[in-house]
Amino acid sequence: MKISLNELATQFGLELVGNENHTINGVSTLAKARSSELSFLANTKYKSELKETQAGIVVLTRQDSRIFDGNALIANDPYVMFAKIACLFQNNQYPDMCIHKTAIIAESAIIADNVAIGPYCVIGENSNIGQGTILEAHVVVGNDCTIKKNCIIKSQVVVSFGCNIGSRVILHPGVIIGADGFGLARDKDGWVKVPQLGAVEIGDDCEVGANTTIDRGTLEDTILAQDVRLDNQIQIAHNVQIGKHTVMAGCSAVAGSAKIGNNCLIGGGVGIVGHIEICDNVTLQSMALVTHSITKPGSYSSVSPIQETQAWRKSAVRIKQLDKLSKRVKDLERKNNESK
Amino acid sequence: MKISLNELATQFGLELVGNENHTINGVSTLAKARSSELSFLANTKYKSELKETQAGIVVLTRQDSRIFDGNALIANDPYVMFAKIACLFQNNQYPDMCIHKTAIIAESAIIADNVAIGPYCVIGENSNIGQGTILEAHVVVGNDCTIKKNCIIKSQVVVSFGCNIGSRVILHPGVIIGADGFGLARDKDGWVKVPQLGAVEIGDDCEVGANTTIDRGTLEDTILAQDVRLDNQIQIAHNVQIGKHTVMAGCSAVAGSAKIGNNCLIGGGVGIVGHIEICDNVTLQSMALVTHSITKPGSYSSVSPIQETQAWRKSAVRIKQLDKLSKRVKDLERKNNESK
Amino acid sequence: MKISLNELATQFGLELVGNENHTINGVSTLAKARSSELSFLANTKYKSELKETQAGIVVLTRQDSRIFDGNALIANDPYVMFAKIACLFQNNQYPDMCIHKTAIIAESAIIADNVAIGPYCVIGENSNIGQGTILEAHVVVGNDCTIKKNCIIKSQVVVSFGCNIGSRVILHPGVIIGADGFGLARDKDGWVKVPQLGAVEIGDDCEVGANTTIDRGTLEDTILAQDVRLDNQIQIAHNVQIGKHTVMAGCSAVAGSAKIGNNCLIGGGVGIVGHIEICDNVTLQSMALVTHSITKPGSYSSVSPIQETQAWRKSAVRIKQLDKLSKRVKDLERKNNESK
Repeated sequence: MKISLNELATQFGLELVGNENHTINGVSTLAKARSSELSFLANTKYKSELKETQAGIVVLTRQDSRIFDGNALIANDPYVMFAKIACLFQNNQYPDMCIHKTAIIAESAIIADNVAIGPYCVIGENSNIGQGTILEAHVVVGNDCTIKKNCIIKSQVVVSFGCNIGSRVILHPGVIIGADGFGLARDKDGWVKVPQLGAVEIGDDCEVGANTTIDRGTLEDTILAQDVRLDNQIQIAHNVQIGKHTVMAGCSAVAGSAKIGNNCLIGGGVGIVGHIEICDNVTLQSMALVTHSITKPGSYSSVSPIQETQAWRKSAVRIKQLDKLSKRVKDLERKNNESK
Repeated sequence: MKISLNELATQFGLELVGNENHTINGVSTLAKARSSELSFLANTKYKSELKETQAGIVVLTRQDSRIFDGNALIANDPYVMFAKIACLFQNNQYPDMCIHKTAIIAESAIIADNVAIGPYCVIGENSNIGQGTILEAHVVVGNDCTIKKNCIIKSQVVVSFGCNIGSRVILHPGVIIGADGFGLARDKDGWVKVPQLGAVEIGDDCEVGANTTIDRGTLEDTILAQDVRLDNQIQIAHNVQIGKHTVMAGCSAVAGSAKIGNNCLIGGGVGIVGHIEICDNVTLQSMALVTHSITKPGSYSSVSPIQETQAWRKSAVRIKQLDKLSKRVKDLERKNNESK
Repeated sequence: MKISLNELATQFGLELVGNENHTINGVSTLAKARSSELSFLANTKYKSELKETQAGIVVLTRQDSRIFDGNALIANDPYVMFAKIACLFQNNQYPDMCIHKTAIIAESAIIADNVAIGPYCVIGENSNIGQGTILEAHVVVGNDCTIKKNCIIKSQVVVSFGCNIGSRVILHPGVIIGADGFGLARDKDGWVKVPQLGAVEIGDDCEVGANTTIDRGTLEDTILAQDVRLDNQIQIAHNVQIGKHTVMAGCSAVAGSAKIGNNCLIGGGVGIVGHIEICDNVTLQSMALVTHSITKPGSYSSVSPIQETQAWRKSAVRIKQLDKLSKRVKDLERKNNESK
């Protein structure tokens, strides 16, 4: 793939400053780009690298373009524009859209035109795979599932019976959609499993990271709205609902029946307990533990960052004495007032 | 599946109040159930929904039945009874118990009657699959394993060589049983792997959630007793022992050689360090970190819940100064005493 | 496998004290070893078990050998030596190195001599598998990958396109190498996916635990140096670099572009935020949260261990009041000084 700066500017509707005949064949960082590569400036932290960059062209804001002498594409949001341009240079891993002869597809399943199904995939009864969707190798789709158009379902994904996946969804390797929720009732002799009769509903444009698990609902469905983005190793329990455009970083976990609003930014390793609600536009910092509903947009945190272990041990001991300490201060204040 | 209230009452040995000829064909929540569906009241939080419910019948306690006019089944524990009744309405995903022609089964393996083995399963030498057990697609069972009767092993599960699974066990998709424990010895040139010569032993009636990993022991086995219930994405390290009826929520992790008692309730994201013991009947709240043995039953916690980030930053700074603060208070108290 | 103490001493270059003709056929703990088994003493905690052990021979230091009457092998580091000796007693799970007839291998792939490829493996175009490497069942290797010599790739592993694995690497079941990093740019209508054009580079002698995920880089590669050891369920984000001999326990997570030094010991459930650097020889205690770069070797902690929930609730409330408490103490100190 080789493209001239002129063609780039035209294709993405951007203003070009510089040599329109120069061509590029890839993308890179400001520090590492060669003259045959495009780079971008989106974070002021890297502004100093503009002066030294060897990049053939840089995507940047009009303001930043004033301090740059090389070829430039002017963009309102250089990072978004870079993301779009970089797609040109992705290797196509699926050159021929075909159904591998080892795929086992139930007779009652409906496979649209232009679908790719990789080696050793298994697709159950009455399931429905939409146009342009790609299943890599070893994907297992249960009975009565729907996967809509232009999805990419990577290797070793399991979509359990009755689950529905929207259009343009990406499920990364090892994702498990629709395992049983963790429902148990305690009888005198031990635990009784509560059947999980709901399913999972995933909206259009969602992306789910490697080895993330999304459990089926008990009576109703577990729901991801449109454009929800989940990183790797996340656990979404039964009956959870996540609002549109919400993003969650790796290793976070949401317990049963919690409801998360739209446009939330949830850091890595966050825990959200069950049966609570988080309103729209909430940011949760890494490893925060949310035990009550949040009704006010804003940023929330809970875990203290590290100290050297020796110093931290002293703090940790004092935390356990905090209530007493507080009372001792109150006592001192009382005495102080009395002595006046 | 359609059943009359009379048949339900008889089958489950419950007292019926109302129209014994009414029929139902499903289960739902009090809020959403239609007249053709059964619901239940197990949590007083939902008592107010009794008045409005359209459910064809409700499972509830005798006491709650006094404030309800509709059809009722009287149960000592409505949630347990609901769990049992709801099983009637599960779709059977395994209508024909058969061995798929693509399953690769070692000649020395012993497969009982009435076993289902799905597409692309691989079963190793000398392994033994008990009567009524179901392996979905893409299950890999190593050499010398035993899986007893009436288990359900879902897609993409790996049971590594030499591991033993009891009867009526459910392993959800992506579970890995018997990967090597994390054993390393430091030599002058780097790490030396310590061979993991034990296996994993899983008792009857256990359930293991999606993508959970249970490592094999170093010299002895890693052991789950009977009726242990693990949620998704849990990590159980080598030589861990977990007592019967203990339940662990998603994303918890137990380090090597820890020993957990019976009837413990372990919240999500909990960490338990290695080589400690937790006695019976311990409850650990979400994301607690257990660094020492627990010898007294009860509930334990460690992580503070969230604050708004701005306020939390002030607390976080103060935590680091706690030891000094404590000493300053002591000093004030001393002076206060001297000045008397 | 049966070996005389004399042969053992010769093979491992150790000094033998005792009956050189005695033979052993296995290894065990001091407490459980029989006279046909070898054991070891590496932790002073177990010294008291020396007196009672039935072991046929014990590997221990010269110093400890003075208080032991039985057969002994003298080693500078008994645990390292035990690890090496125990390898003799591992069952060989791969007796015949062959390529299973159901493996689907692209014509352009290069498979060295003496490679084992298990049932239902899929290997993409131009990929390269080195001599002595073993792929168990259901391994998926994408296009343009290299896996060097003498690796063991366990069942259900995915190595995505373009990734490179060194020699003697072990990838445990369910490991995902090279899933897309979590790169998103926010446009007015929603999230735009940032293509992940880098790959993953794993050095010689690394070991990666079950269900661990290592994402591909955005523009450059995600890199594990030589002899990095990762436990289960770890999440390594895009562009992370981990230095040689660094060890990380289960369920830890490293966010994008973080750089971790050599010889670090990282506990379980640790979180490391993105774009920071951790120097060599840092120890992080379990569940610590690292939010800033660490430039000084040493041990760091952040989470307080558990309290009983009732007591902990009081502490938790007081933590939120800490800033105020601190100011009240300052006020008391001021008054105290004024009153002098």
